[in-house]
Order: sequence, then structure tokens, then C-alpha cells
Amino acid sequence: MGGRLDHVNIAAPDAGELARRFTAVLGMRVVKETVVPDQGVKVVMLDAGGTHLEITEPLGADTPVGRFLAKKGSGLHHIAIEVEDIEATLAKMKAEGIALIDETPRIGAMGHRIAFVHPKSFGGVLVEIVEGTAD
Amino acid sequence: MGGRLDHVNIAAPDAGELARRFTAVLGMRVVKETVVPDQGVKVVMLDAGGTHLEITEPLGADTPVGRFLAKKGSGLHHIAIEVEDIEATLAKMKAEGIALIDETPRIGAMGHRIAFVHPKSFGGVLVEIVEGTAD
Repeated sequence: MGGRLDHVNIAAPDAGELARRFTAVLGMRVVKETVVPDQGVKVVMLDAGGTHLEITEPLGADTPVGRFLAKKGSGLHHIAIEVEDIEATLAKMKAEGIALIDETPRIGAMGHRIAFVHPKSFGGVLVEIVEGTAD
Repeated sequence: MGGRLDHVNIAAPDAGELARRFTAVLGMRVVKETVVPDQGVKVVMLDAGGTHLEITEPLGADTPVGRFLAKKGSGLHHIAIEVEDIEATLAKMKAEGIALIDETPRIGAMGHRIAFVHPKSFGGVLVEIVEGTAD
């Protein structure tokens, strides 16, 4: 379904520790933990009732998430919105003059086709679009 | 249901303009627009498939959101998690040494009982807890 919030991403130095805080006092549940060496991250996914909190921890300082933490500190990083057809959405965005980080789809940490859109086009919010996810 | 993401909040200088971007290219839909003079904000709510994007625009520079924009700029501001019993959740948080901004519930922009938790206790993420919402 188009327009569904697929996940909210948080960058943190210790994903497991932060996930335990959400599970301990807010009744959330960890649904997946994975390491994606290509992207230099450990990822913990929490069920948030039809959407997810995704916490990413850098595997080292010299990774995109490691550099984000060094510059901005731990906190909210991006939101991901589900779209039905990622190529059609990217074409529409280009036609509207929206600044894209990824001009063509790539495979994200969870195996879906994704693309990032520049925050300057969405009020300072880094937006990921993700094509129809099964889970 | 406990643990559901009620909304993601974005602070922006022009809520209507940013909302139009989400509706124009991502298939989202505006479900509510309201002004809350007490809190110095205009609020635009977008349906995000079981959760919402909430965009808040300050009514003036000398408001909490106005000061946030001046200091940090437009972008992601907080996430709100639904809890079944807000007093019980606050008591549990206090017992665990979690830093609270609101020690007791107050009424939020949408009329629900809410409380804010300090970002230092949630990995730099400003967390709002909101008691069982009907919508």
C-alpha cells in the first residue's frame, strides 16, 4: 500500500541496549536482529504495531552510520515510506525537481528495493522509499 | 495496544507546504489540520497506514517549536508510542530511573493524555507516550 510508514530509523551506538529500553517499558518486541557487513551496520527491528522502529548501530567509526553518530549524535535518522512502484515514484520525483540521493533503486538492509531522497526536499527529513514489503 | 507507534512528528516552518510534498509524490492523505494556540502550533496530520505523520508549524518564533527550528532547523522532532495506562507507564519509568519531562500526564494537541520522556533516556530520541487513542 502506498504511503504506509514502513519504519522509523534511529542511529545509536548500541542497538541492543536501546532496544531493551523500548521493550522493557513500552511493551515493544524485537522481531529481527541482523548484521549487514556491506553497509557496516547491526540492525535491530522492533514491532511498533503495523510499522517498525529500526535501530542501526555502526560496525565501526568509518561507516555512514558511524560518521553520522560522530557528527550529530545518537537519535532519529530517517523515515521509510512504502510505495507500490519504486521506479514510477522516482520518475515522478525527478519530474517534480525533488533531489534524489539514489537515482535508481538499490537493495536495503532488509532485502527490499529502496532509494533515499535528499532531506532538503522533505523539510530536513531524510526519506527512504521502499517498494512493497511483505512483512 | 501498547507499543504501537502513534505518530512521528516533524517540525517545519510551513506544515501545509511540507504536507503537500508527502501527498503529491508518496500517496499520503491529510486527515486533520488544526491550530492549538496554547501550544503555539499549527498541526497537519497525514495518514501513514496505521500510524501518522504529524507536522507542526510554529505560530511564532517565541514558541517551543519556533525555538526548536531556530536551533536545529526543520526535521524529525519526536516519536509517540501508545501505551495502555499512562500513569502505570510513568511509574515504571520512574522506577527504572528514566528521565521524564512530564512527571504527570497532560493533554496533547490531539486531546489525548500524553507525557514526554527525556531524549537522554532513549538514545537521543525525544519520546512521547500517549494513552490509548481512538483513531
